[in-house]
Amino acid sequence: MGRNHQVYGGGGGTMSRGWSCLFYLLVFLTEILLFGVLILSLVWVYLFKDGFAWRDDIQRQFNLHPVLMITGFIFLMGNAMLVYRLFRCCNKLASKLLHTFLYLLAVPCIVVAMIAVFDNHNLREPPIPNLYSLHSWLGLITMGLFGLQFVVGFFSFWILLCCEQGTSSFRSNMLPIHSTFGIITFMLAIATSLTGYTEKAFFDL
Amino acid sequence: MGRNHQVYGGGGGTMSRGWSCLFYLLVFLTEILLFGVLILSLVWVYLFKDGFAWRDDIQRQFNLHPVLMITGFIFLMGNAMLVYRLFRCCNKLASKLLHTFLYLLAVPCIVVAMIAVFDNHNLREPPIPNLYSLHSWLGLITMGLFGLQFVVGFFSFWILLCCEQGTSSFRSNMLPIHSTFGIITFMLAIATSLTGYTEKAFFDL
Repeated sequence: MGRNHQVYGGGGGTMSRGWSCLFYLLVFLTEILLFGVLILSLVWVYLFKDGFAWRDDIQRQFNLHPVLMITGFIFLMGNAMLVYRLFRCCNKLASKLLHTFLYLLAVPCIVVAMIAVFDNHNLREPPIPNLYSLHSWLGLITMGLFGLQFVVGFFSFWILLCCEQGTSSFRSNMLPIHSTFGIITFMLAIATSLTGYTEKAFFDL
Repeated sequence: MGRNHQVYGGGGGTMSRGWSCLFYLLVFLTEILLFGVLILSLVWVYLFKDGFAWRDDIQRQFNLHPVLMITGFIFLMGNAMLVYRLFRCCNKLASKLLHTFLYLLAVPCIVVAMIAVFDNHNLREPPIPNLYSLHSWLGLITMGLFGLQFVVGFFSFWILLCCEQGTSSFRSNMLPIHSTFGIITFMLAIATSLTGYTEKAFFDL
């Protein structure tokens, strides 16, 4: 295959121009979906649910929960996963830094979203019990996996860089495990969102 | 690696004994989950929902919907996907036949489960509207993909066997597409089940 039919594919691979076009089309569609779900969540809360609040109005405080969870678990995590796909030609370390930064941004979103829903349950008169639904348990498992991924990933791919040569085979063995568990966590986040939206729809019926 | 450290891995590959043990352990755990979800659904319907009926009692007719959908989309589809993993050493054509047979068994389960839920909505006084929830639309998309997979798979991997040599490269190109869409359909089926269980739990609250 001639040089003009190949583009740099990153990760040691090359793609023909046709596959590369299809690949970037899929990445572009994924970005539209990621931005779409975030924008639609904001539109939903602002146009139909009276926006946000904190403590003084627990009904509007709750609205922070879906929007911030979608921001953390879908928008930021999805984009963090796409970093290695979007910037295939760029410096690997810069991509890794951006990947970690996006995950770091997701952490406060998830923490505030958690506080919002616990407040909404506990500050009511009478309080609603916590963690009684499929959604909440799926959410807990997703958060557990997210935390585990974060800690193990940070240790394996940043801390162990201190002796780069000695840990390279360990790091390359960890990579497929880290990315597989990343995809599983993302799938669980999607399943949790779907059950969450279903719950919300049926509470509002 | 000595011969006694390798086992036949099927699909042209071999695995070391350690990986093979881990592999079959994972397959075994998956089987436990597949049988578990089916048995728990049956226990739930028989012990807490008064079993099944047809037309004369639409409340009990509805119970056919979750059980048969789980049977078709999770139990049979999951086992059909596992056939190529369980019988790695066996004749490929026999595995393909079993894979097709399990999918064929899933079709009547899904059709009856669909009729059960439409009857439950339409035969009520007053009738409930159909297809208004996230669960129902996810279910429709899953069924559409299932049908598409079935038709395209049957054409590609059975009909095109009539001129085996001429179509071998097409069939081997189709294989990763077919298995990827199979996994996507299975994931969608799981997401649909989760939203379905959430709906049912909130209707019964």
